[in-house]
Amino acid sequence: MSRFLVDKYRSLEVYTPGEQPQDMDYVKLNTNESPYPPSKGVFEAVCGKEVQKLALYPDPECRILREKIAGLYGVEKDNVFVSNGSDDILNFSFMAFCSDQTEAVFPNITYGFYKVFGDLHGVKYTQIPLDKDFKINVSDYMNTGKTVVIANPNAPTGLALTKDEVEQIVSSNSENAVVIDEAYVDFGAESCAELTKKYENLLVVQTYSKSRSMAGARLGFAIGSKALIDDLNRIKYSTNPYNVNRLTLLAGAAAIDDDKYYKDCCQKIIEVREYTKERLAKMGFTFPDSKANFIFARCSSLGGGEYYKKLKENGVLVRHFSSPDICDYVRITVGTKEQMDTLLSVTEKILGQEV
Amino acid sequence: MSRFLVDKYRSLEVYTPGEQPQDMDYVKLNTNESPYPPSKGVFEAVCGKEVQKLALYPDPECRILREKIAGLYGVEKDNVFVSNGSDDILNFSFMAFCSDQTEAVFPNITYGFYKVFGDLHGVKYTQIPLDKDFKINVSDYMNTGKTVVIANPNAPTGLALTKDEVEQIVSSNSENAVVIDEAYVDFGAESCAELTKKYENLLVVQTYSKSRSMAGARLGFAIGSKALIDDLNRIKYSTNPYNVNRLTLLAGAAAIDDDKYYKDCCQKIIEVREYTKERLAKMGFTFPDSKANFIFARCSSLGGGEYYKKLKENGVLVRHFSSPDICDYVRITVGTKEQMDTLLSVTEKILGQEV
Repeated sequence: MSRFLVDKYRSLEVYTPGEQPQDMDYVKLNTNESPYPPSKGVFEAVCGKEVQKLALYPDPECRILREKIAGLYGVEKDNVFVSNGSDDILNFSFMAFCSDQTEAVFPNITYGFYKVFGDLHGVKYTQIPLDKDFKINVSDYMNTGKTVVIANPNAPTGLALTKDEVEQIVSSNSENAVVIDEAYVDFGAESCAELTKKYENLLVVQTYSKSRSMAGARLGFAIGSKALIDDLNRIKYSTNPYNVNRLTLLAGAAAIDDDKYYKDCCQKIIEVREYTKERLAKMGFTFPDSKANFIFARCSSLGGGEYYKKLKENGVLVRHFSSPDICDYVRITVGTKEQMDTLLSVTEKILGQEV
Repeated sequence: MSRFLVDKYRSLEVYTPGEQPQDMDYVKLNTNESPYPPSKGVFEAVCGKEVQKLALYPDPECRILREKIAGLYGVEKDNVFVSNGSDDILNFSFMAFCSDQTEAVFPNITYGFYKVFGDLHGVKYTQIPLDKDFKINVSDYMNTGKTVVIANPNAPTGLALTKDEVEQIVSSNSENAVVIDEAYVDFGAESCAELTKKYENLLVVQTYSKSRSMAGARLGFAIGSKALIDDLNRIKYSTNPYNVNRLTLLAGAAAIDDDKYYKDCCQKIIEVREYTKERLAKMGFTFPDSKANFIFARCSSLGGGEYYKKLKENGVLVRHFSSPDICDYVRITVGTKEQMDTLLSVTEKILGQEV
């Protein structure tokens, strides 16, 4: 920290992304990436003749990509915002819809970045406890008078609300924006994108980082009423108008054309997830019924930190959170069946040593 | 604007980027892009086997690229920050080093985004008038007690301070951060990057968008003391830790390896700039002595808005700013000699019609 940093950020607790170790090749199950590569169309788009045009700025309005996304979700281009990863959009949403007067509300166990955005922007926020089974109580989010932010499925639990439950929350908070972060929705939960046509206060945020195999390209999008999208554009045009690069714009559009490929990948991940759950359950693990591409698992005989450490020693990387209410758990990304078999056999070995 | 947007942003005047029209192919001299494509190494990097890894997050620490940049400028990796375009870094700098208590100071005619960043973050700022020849008076920036932000060369004038002049400003403001925005420095001005080793309050910001032919890839970097870089990382890790995508990281590193190619391109642009100045002067244009890849030119017989409009009708796009103090001028990006010859002959035609 320099002596020039302004006071308000001096005690900021920043977000800690998952490890990206460079020391060896791990079976990497710690940051919820897809185990499958991008589709063929994406390869062709990235390596095509547009590379010649890298000297020119990208289209700041991202028109072609927004049209593609709009087409897929049955909305208009003006209902779509794209940005440099969904973190960017969530950050903009905290700026646009929350303040010291317009409070935010989100679960106490959820994506850790919401709290960071809140702190960064001096937003007042309330964190509502999950129930003892890590579930979000819908009734806690009715008529809040606050900007509601919910990850659906929630992270790191993987538990999803139904579309009807989200609609109850959205309709009861008609005087406030409701941000539904659907980063993991494509692995078995219901998207609320179409509800944006009915509710002007609903913003649905999605990402290409998980179900669309493109964490490395940085692309997120939001769907909402034109007015909400205009608000996000206001922030974008006050910070970084050209915030999505040319190749990512192309890759994003090509991925929509190859939607079936990604749906198939999601289906495979769902099958591997259920297989892994079954095997873990037999070894005495417990976990919420994840609808995401990860499993939030607790070992009956080993603390979360210890299990994480032993897995890492054996070349398998998962995510552990040290916060007391979830420190017994690890979050395991669902990879390929082969990767999960490695995790499972390493786990058997670790537990065998324990006995 | 939605009714959910918080009060503080409701009257925000956003930045207006240069036109990126999709209606026809213009001779595009309006956004200071390079007329030359990226180097061969960049093509190979972008289309190489790393595309396979797009499903994985990029290295949030951007280690390889930061090492390359550090090597080129003779500093350490920890003195380098990279981000999604230099706008991103300037935005972070306004957040980190300016507030309602720590005021900012910058010229009244300069990159229009500084004012937008200031307004966005509720920063108090002073805009110091340039002199009648559009020059920055160094004495105006001595002992300001404020965070100093100067584009060097300045935009849209193209006029540069010498390294000695910048050093006077930096040393006299030792209790405040001084941000030198060197977006255009490679076209004939002196970089102050090496002064960062001597002054802990100096942050030098550069971009790949101009001299490195990569506006479409979105990459900027900053050089400064480790403490200043830590401050920028604090903001980055509170907004978007993975803010530079994999392909841009690769392209950025490859461009450093191909540094000679870019230096040659800059030299060509400098030669074409001087040629264009000479021709424009003969037609009665006046302009500051630009050290950037653009010419800020005033026609003796035609207003800036009119000249811009007639050029556009003839398929040549330049930038016009409507603010009263500079509305007589247009900013013309230096393209290839062929592009400038088109500009010049279209200009001859326009002026001929005027007579």
